Order: sequence, then C-alpha cells, then structure tokens
Amino acid sequence: MTTALPQPSEHDAQRLEIARKLADLASEVTLSLFRRHGETEDKAGAGDFDPVTKADRDAEAVMRAFLEKEAPDDAINGEEFGLREGRSGWTWYLDPVDGTRAFIAGLPSWTTLIGCAFEEDPKIGVIEQPYLQERYIGWTDGAVLEARGETQPLHVDALSKLTDSILSTTDPFILTPSERGAFEHLRQTAKLTRYGLDAYAYARLAAGNIHLVTETSLKPHDIAALIPVVRGAGGVACDWTGAPARLGPQLACAASQEIMDQAIISLRRSAGRRAGIGQQ
Amino acid sequence: MTTALPQPSEHDAQRLEIARKLADLASEVTLSLFRRHGETEDKAGAGDFDPVTKADRDAEAVMRAFLEKEAPDDAINGEEFGLREGRSGWTWYLDPVDGTRAFIAGLPSWTTLIGCAFEEDPKIGVIEQPYLQERYIGWTDGAVLEARGETQPLHVDALSKLTDSILSTTDPFILTPSERGAFEHLRQTAKLTRYGLDAYAYARLAAGNIHLVTETSLKPHDIAALIPVVRGAGGVACDWTGAPARLGPQLACAASQEIMDQAIISLRRSAGRRAGIGQQ
Repeated sequence: MTTALPQPSEHDAQRLEIARKLADLASEVTLSLFRRHGETEDKAGAGDFDPVTKADRDAEAVMRAFLEKEAPDDAINGEEFGLREGRSGWTWYLDPVDGTRAFIAGLPSWTTLIGCAFEEDPKIGVIEQPYLQERYIGWTDGAVLEARGETQPLHVDALSKLTDSILSTTDPFILTPSERGAFEHLRQTAKLTRYGLDAYAYARLAAGNIHLVTETSLKPHDIAALIPVVRGAGGVACDWTGAPARLGPQLACAASQEIMDQAIISLRRSAGRRAGIGQQ
Repeated sequence: MTTALPQPSEHDAQRLEIARKLADLASEVTLSLFRRHGETEDKAGAGDFDPVTKADRDAEAVMRAFLEKEAPDDAINGEEFGLREGRSGWTWYLDPVDGTRAFIAGLPSWTTLIGCAFEEDPKIGVIEQPYLQERYIGWTDGAVLEARGETQPLHVDALSKLTDSILSTTDPFILTPSERGAFEHLRQTAKLTRYGLDAYAYARLAAGNIHLVTETSLKPHDIAALIPVVRGAGGVACDWTGAPARLGPQLACAASQEIMDQAIISLRRSAGRRAGIGQQ
C-alpha cells in the first residue's frame, strides 16, 4: 500500500499502545466464548431482558487488571464493574462486549470498546471485532483500520445530502415516542437504513460505508471509544442539539457537517427529552 | 474433531459438488467488489430504492455460465437474469447477493444463495458468506458448516418455548399492517429480536444461535437454498399457515416444532394476505 498512513503524536501513541494491548487481552477472552453455549444472566427487572455474559465480565476483568498495573494513576469506568477513581485526569472507558444481544445470537457485529478521555474529552478510541479480525483505531487527528494483517487509513464518505445517505440505528423499538418521530423522519429521508449494529455502525461510518448513525440511551462507556474513531476519520460527532458530542445519552455521528445539519433539523425536537434510562 | 460428520447420499453429493463450485465462483466476484465503491443501480420505481450492484450481476453471470456447461439439462432461476427452462426436472435457484443493502453498507451479513430443487421441492442449499469464510451446506437429511478450514455438523438449538427464543426478521418496516401485528406479537413474546440479517439469520438458526425467523415478500431464489439448510440441521420450515414451506412469499423457520406451533398462532392471522409484492 502506497497511501501514507496517519500517525499519532508521541503523546497519543503511548496510550494507544496500552489500548492495543487491552484489545488483545479482551479478544482472547471474547473469541474463546463466542458461539459457545455459556451462561447468560439477566440484569434487568421483570419484563425486560438486559443480558450479561461471562464474556462481558471476564473480558473487562482482564483489561482492568492490566490497567491497574500499567496505568495505576488513570481512572477506569467499565460497564460491568463500575468506576475506579484516578488522579491523572485520564479515564479509561471499557465496554467489554458492546452488542451483547448480537454476541448471544452468534452475530459478528458485537465489538469491544476501549476509550480514553482526558477530563471527559475522548482522545483515543478502539473498536475491536476479533472474529472479523478488524480493529478500528482513532485518535486526536487520525484513524486507521487494522484488518487481517493490513493497515489502512480510515476516511468517511463525505456526502453532502441526507437523501443519498445510509442511516443506522440499533433498535427503533427502544425509542421514546418523541425520538421515534425524529427517527421516522430520518428513515423516510435517507436512502436506506440498517438496524442492530451497535458500535459497529460507527466503525463502518469511519470506513466510508455508512453516513449517519443516531442513538439514544447511551452511557459513557458506549461512547468514549466512538468519538475519536469517527472524528479521526473526518466525521462529525454531536449530541441531538448539534453541539459537540458529550458522553451520552444521545449521540449523532455523520460523515459530513452538511449531513449533520440536515439530521439535526429532525433530531433537535427530541433532544434531551430523556434521562439516560435503560441501555442498549 | 471427533464428532462424525453427516454425509450426503451419492445422489445428493453430485449436485452438492456443483453447488460448492458455484459458491467458489460467486465468491471470487463478490469479495473483489465488497467494500469497494462501485456503481449501484436502482431497479425500483420512484420513491422506492431497490439496489442492484455489479456484484449481483457479475456473480450470477459466472454461476449461470458454469451451469450451462456442467448441468445443461437443469433449469436456472436467478434473481438478476430470470428463468432459463430445463428438462431434467431440477432447477437451480440463484441469489448472487442476498442482502444487497448490507453489501452496500459494508456489512458482512449478505450471502450468496444457491438452491437446487426437484420439481419445486428444495433438496440442496448453500448459504455462502465469503468475507466471514463461512459456507452453510444442507441437503435432504444433513447439514454442515465449512468455516475457516474446519467442517462441523449443523444442529439447531431445539428449545421448546417461544419465550426463551431469539427471533429475527429483516425489516419490520416492510410488513403490511396485518403482518406487523403478527410480528409485534412475536417480538413481545420472544426473549430478544435481531434485524437486518437477510438469509444469514437462517444460517445462524441452523447453527443453533437463533430460534425463529419470519419473513415475507420472499421470492423462490430467496428461499430455495434456506430450506435444506434449516431442515438438514433439524429445524422446521413452514409458510405462515404452518404448512410445509413453499417457495414464497411468506416463510417461517423454527428450531423446533413446538416453537413453530407457538409462532403460527400469531402468524396465521396474516397468512397469505399479500401477493409477492416488492422484495427485500
């Protein structure tokens, strides 16, 4: 490959190296359990189903153990085992299996998310899919895909029209009525819509296939890894008012500012109309 | 692996060998075009979007050319190039890219479908996903998965309760109001639901991860490959009245007769209420 690859600054490179090692450790665990019959627990109340698997717990445990040794001053905020305070200003956000439902259904669209933020501003992100052998890595001003032994730069497909765009959201049935109105408007406008992808939709936005992803009910560990990958690939990450993305609960990522502007017309009416209830 | 693999009869084995060769030929084409920017045409009328790509056309063309040489007496029914009459009683059903929307969106859940039926009774099926290196093969009384150099028997997970089941359908928004009512009933009953998988959902049903798939608007080339894989793995394939599956437009596949019986309670009310309008 002759295309020059984007390179992180020395400052980013150090924590990127840790993030890569975390992805390696998590993938050993998740791959060994994917498509094996394992126990699944339900952490939701009656009538709901919020699955957590041995893969979620064991993968987070190995990542936390590594960080406690290699980055003892950084905070850790993980989906399964919560917050460990730090004193460096840096926080690692860990979602060992984003898309647990896909994992349980044997579908290779789940990912491991590793984000690192300085004072809540995400600087480094890894979206890891080991069954596909795909690792999407983003930092302050660049992003690459390491896939099957090759590394390639990540670039969004910077379309200007929402009507030409491919849209994705995870589950249209978890939306509030107000959010569903906004989503329905987008769905009718976009060229086509894909469901059920969780974080993998943001990965393919960064890779140039998808142009708009809108989601709600997200927590910081769902989001922190996504923002550097999307922005590093040239995309735009906002909340549903069009302001720069925060760590939840509503997130919109687009391949261009033009598409974001057109999407926000629909989204802003239901922006902020929910607390971070539930979780995908 | 010490598990004995199911083996096809000599009668099935001969056409299975042709089906494998067709899958090889199609995969060379589709893989060379997946995630490359290629022209996409729209074969729907105004206001709709029914994409067809160079991958669809070229992959079907190489398969047809092979069949015309190696099985000149068999009929061919392909998505892109229609029907060629035969005189052996056998028909090859070809869907070069099932899930063209997923293909365009860079998602590895599209498949190539190759079915072979004797007088409209599907006897042999291949569900091929070359990016994942997964080939699901079914015949009269067996099914295997060839994946990444290993061959393993395919067995459904024969649960007995719909409430424990994982459900899938491709797009809840293409359903008629009557079908949507039936689907909503199933969705509320099942443990969890996945969308957007096209034929890959049936592959993972055969592999034991998904327990019920219900779809409409299907054409013979969407279905013929699926039935042998599902039945060969021990599953049940019906229309929405609960009768043995025909070649469209409504199909329900389940991991057990018990789950099918529970699903048909919901589905039969909208069985047959549409002609084969549109297409996924």
